[in-house]
Amino acid sequence: MKYEVGQKASFSKTIAESDVYGFAGITGDLNPAHVNEVAAGKTMFKHRIAHGILLVGFISTVLGQKLPGEGTIYLSQQAKFLKPVYIGDTITAVAEVAEVRPKGRLLLHTYILNQDGEIVVDGEAEVLAPKEK
Amino acid sequence: MKYEVGQKASFSKTIAESDVYGFAGITGDLNPAHVNEVAAGKTMFKHRIAHGILLVGFISTVLGQKLPGEGTIYLSQQAKFLKPVYIGDTITAVAEVAEVRPKGRLLLHTYILNQDGEIVVDGEAEVLAPKEK
Amino acid sequence: MKYEVGQKASFSKTIAESDVYGFAGITGDLNPAHVNEVAAGKTMFKHRIAHGILLVGFISTVLGQKLPGEGTIYLSQQAKFLKPVYIGDTITAVAEVAEVRPKGRLLLHTYILNQDGEIVVDGEAEVLAPKEK
Amino acid sequence: MKYEVGQKASFSKTIAESDVYGFAGITGDLNPAHVNEVAAGKTMFKHRIAHGILLVGFISTVLGQKLPGEGTIYLSQQAKFLKPVYIGDTITAVAEVAEVRPKGRLLLHTYILNQDGEIVVDGEAEVLAPKEK
Repeated sequence: MKYEVGQKASFSKTIAESDVYGFAGITGDLNPAHVNEVAAGKTMFKHRIAHGILLVGFISTVLGQKLPGEGTIYLSQQAKFLKPVYIGDTITAVAEVAEVRPKGRLLLHTYILNQDGEIVVDGEAEVLAPKEK
Repeated sequence: MKYEVGQKASFSKTIAESDVYGFAGITGDLNPAHVNEVAAGKTMFKHRIAHGILLVGFISTVLGQKLPGEGTIYLSQQAKFLKPVYIGDTITAVAEVAEVRPKGRLLLHTYILNQDGEIVVDGEAEVLAPKEK
Repeated sequence: MKYEVGQKASFSKTIAESDVYGFAGITGDLNPAHVNEVAAGKTMFKHRIAHGILLVGFISTVLGQKLPGEGTIYLSQQAKFLKPVYIGDTITAVAEVAEVRPKGRLLLHTYILNQDGEIVVDGEAEVLAPKEK
Repeated sequence: MKYEVGQKASFSKTIAESDVYGFAGITGDLNPAHVNEVAAGKTMFKHRIAHGILLVGFISTVLGQKLPGEGTIYLSQQAKFLKPVYIGDTITAVAEVAEVRPKGRLLLHTYILNQDGEIVVDGEAEVLAPKEK
């Protein structure tokens, strides 16, 4: 597969309470913002929100499963958290080739949309693409 | 709490197979590098490795639970994946205040060490610190 | 225990979102029909549905836990998926001895009902029953 | 996509203890053969084995994610359990088009191999393939 600027792939999921709780349990980030509806109700977000890094995890899914896909080596990820994602929101993680670099490296524009089409996480990733696909 | 450059906090965990598989299941990233020991054995890594973003999740734990702690709002995260982390490795995620910025913002140097003291993930985070703690 | 045609056992559970998401994560079947409420809303089913094989898993529970119970060796399973099961539905998996075969084998009629008494999965299993119970 | 006899797709995973325990917890099939190493040691299998239906779940992954892929409607599945799969085994679930039937139906030969290339589960599935892919 020849990589070209503008190639795009995505993965979507409705964020379940069990996703947020599972991620909390694995990482140990049981912050009230994520697992305490009463405390979260008193914050500016009003309800429990998904962990920002959990959302970035869906970018990893797109990179490793779809573009460039299996065999990809992840070099770096940058992400800005722009808006909260709530339990029950449906997100779409997108990766789009932004630059084809020497020695098999790709720069990808990586972002996450919610069900209203708002960008909730924005950033970029650099990967070493698998040689052949 | 007054934040000062050099303040530091950390969180450590031995990475279990169930951590990697749990993260794979939540995100959908069931890449062979993470869940197929036979296929992973044929890669340069030789064994299944943890997802890079799972490791960054432990940074989120330090920021949200310890420094600055509860009430922190995550603005951005940057991470470079330098070395593989295997199932059974014990990692330590560290956040260290690098800059105290106006309006409650902090820049933190964030990195992850393995049990041999090698930096496996390196980067920085910007957060909005809680007003009082 | 002497097995006789017509013996029956069952197991019931309300299907939680975490059941469907957990099964998706273990198997890697994160199909939009199961984990994307927005996309599922555009299909003939209108909402996320449980994986058919997850439902068959409850048959396995009846066979291994109740009839014939511990020590059972599962030889084969056949299943037709007749109607969708939604998150929140309460299913009852039933196994009924249909035939007592030579050498300890049993043929069981296996099916799953929803809370309205509709058969949602229908089929049969063959097992090697434990010698004594 | 035009379906043709002989088209093939697969999915592989090393079976983790957490896969077997997760499936046990969701279905309620906490049979000693699956979750009790001491009791399993006294059976002909000598160690805890994966649930047969969990293995069939990986067939569902191939059908729903790869061939025919998203939008597939699962009509039926038949499976024979031929050999035990242990925690730590690496399985490959394969679906191969066996017959292109009228009205968008496909019959697929579905089977699961272990890391030694032995067929551990064998059977067939009928699906309603998505109209366009």
